Amino acid sequence: MSTLQNRQFKLTSRPVGMVKRSDFEFVTTPAGDPGPGEALVKVLYLSLDPAMRGWMNAGKSYVPPVGLGEVMRAGGIGSVVASNDSSLAAGDTVVGMTGVQDYTIAKAKELTKVDPRLAPLPRYLGALGMPGLTAYFGLLDIGQPKEGETVVVSAAAGAVGAVVGQIAKIKGCRAVGIAGGPDKCRYIVDELGFDAAIDYKNEDVRAGLARHCPKGIDIYFDNVGGEILDIVLSMLARRARVIICGAVSQYNNLESIEGPRNYMSLLVNHARMEGFVVFYYAARYPEGMQALAGWILAGKLKAREDIVEGLETFPDTLQKLFRGENFGKLVIKV
Amino acid sequence: MSTLQNRQFKLTSRPVGMVKRSDFEFVTTPAGDPGPGEALVKVLYLSLDPAMRGWMNAGKSYVPPVGLGEVMRAGGIGSVVASNDSSLAAGDTVVGMTGVQDYTIAKAKELTKVDPRLAPLPRYLGALGMPGLTAYFGLLDIGQPKEGETVVVSAAAGAVGAVVGQIAKIKGCRAVGIAGGPDKCRYIVDELGFDAAIDYKNEDVRAGLARHCPKGIDIYFDNVGGEILDIVLSMLARRARVIICGAVSQYNNLESIEGPRNYMSLLVNHARMEGFVVFYYAARYPEGMQALAGWILAGKLKAREDIVEGLETFPDTLQKLFRGENFGKLVIKV
Repeated sequence: MSTLQNRQFKLTSRPVGMVKRSDFEFVTTPAGDPGPGEALVKVLYLSLDPAMRGWMNAGKSYVPPVGLGEVMRAGGIGSVVASNDSSLAAGDTVVGMTGVQDYTIAKAKELTKVDPRLAPLPRYLGALGMPGLTAYFGLLDIGQPKEGETVVVSAAAGAVGAVVGQIAKIKGCRAVGIAGGPDKCRYIVDELGFDAAIDYKNEDVRAGLARHCPKGIDIYFDNVGGEILDIVLSMLARRARVIICGAVSQYNNLESIEGPRNYMSLLVNHARMEGFVVFYYAARYPEGMQALAGWILAGKLKAREDIVEGLETFPDTLQKLFRGENFGKLVIKV
Repeated sequence: MSTLQNRQFKLTSRPVGMVKRSDFEFVTTPAGDPGPGEALVKVLYLSLDPAMRGWMNAGKSYVPPVGLGEVMRAGGIGSVVASNDSSLAAGDTVVGMTGVQDYTIAKAKELTKVDPRLAPLPRYLGALGMPGLTAYFGLLDIGQPKEGETVVVSAAAGAVGAVVGQIAKIKGCRAVGIAGGPDKCRYIVDELGFDAAIDYKNEDVRAGLARHCPKGIDIYFDNVGGEILDIVLSMLARRARVIICGAVSQYNNLESIEGPRNYMSLLVNHARMEGFVVFYYAARYPEGMQALAGWILAGKLKAREDIVEGLETFPDTLQKLFRGENFGKLVIKV
């Protein structure tokens, strides 16, 4: 029997506004042993995602909320310690919904085995993981980019946004990113190959978009909602597509969420706004993974991770995400 | 030379909030004579449309605003008095953008000849005109209804909404209309064949939708915006389509327009919201006219007009439209 000690962050109250350390309790329990068809996994890296904020709220969404007293939900990558299923063996590297803890016991069929020699492990939580797949299906399936079109993406230095802009370039589009601060803006243009960047913290976003999108915006991949969404709506090209992937500016909003005032621009421009959750594309993950891995190997898709050490930092690291302070895909090294 | 006297409503100030009689001047001028390629038309019926409110505002839209001092823009049907173009002869019945006046001089190629024996003239401004085409292209091209789906339409007793619900039924869908008052609700169910009606003036719209759309809303054809749009967004079915055709609840809004707070429901439900203006389908009008006329002849598509007598009533009749007091397509008999 395993005597491993498992540190866990459990959600103990539904956050009001910004998530706080006091919304969790940090406990240590025995890791336990895997039952039939299950594996015990040592979590190595945890993914921090804007969607986590939504999972903490009560009420119906695309997944049930995390229950009070339950381990906080999170994606992660880890190493199999013991397996009670023939599909996995000790030492295998797997990704899955591990939760914010040192060890997880999961059904083997809910874990995906990956090859740790192909890429650094944190990349499987970023460009080769859910964020990469989110960018891939959102931009290509919903956005349907055509060569020569102008694609704008917000949170452009983030895990999803960085991949969106690079796929846009691969597809022959003009890529314009909106990001916070000169470092992120330089990064997406100089290292990732975006055509232009707008620093929303130091520039007028409307003026920047007018300068960099003289023919209007054909595709907007929205990760932030709020005021930037409204500005973009007022600058759409005819038959534009607005991809609703997130609204991180609104997730910690104490007031009710703000709706896009300029939505009638959809009428004037014969445009559409469409939302999605990457989970709906689960059946096509292999296609997406293959494309992303191919572009990474070909040097066309670059990625960067922002690695914070220590499971115990979780609540503070999550705040860092919502303050936009991470640079690249934010992960915790457990 | 014609000595006909032409009464005209000219826009003299941009309305603030609800349109008022004092936003126009009512003048009489000579009708004039048609130039080469033009025709002089006696206007018989004028169409009153929610879109008129937008045309009175300054600023860029899908058509330029009506200029101050210009005759107010309106669609109409009339009889050719004199023609300087071989395509039209005196006595022909034509539809076009006639303006709010007794006579118009228009380029013959911007007028469409219709057969006055096929339908009462006002119908060419309703079910057989722009409102009918708006319903046809919006529902079929953007909504893509499939048999068995639930279609909800607001302003359901109006010129567009009544046709939307009936086409939904023709396509094998469940049609649920939202309308104001028991008469309109009875009309759309008993005479037009909608499956259900919700009286937004006397019922809780959310409760009504929950009762009549137990499997959620697959298609929402929105003519009103505002609170009803928000309620519907919270009740979408997976992969729903929201067709943005208008936002009559917001057109006379003194404050800035209210955006749909529940737009993140598009993300959760993998749904889309798409806008359009019927003019963008001009190349396909013949297809739409043929389908609508066929359904009318087959008794599958019923229509009703609300006819107000007298050009001089124009500002008051337009207010009636925005107060939702018309019952059927609102036209002025000139």
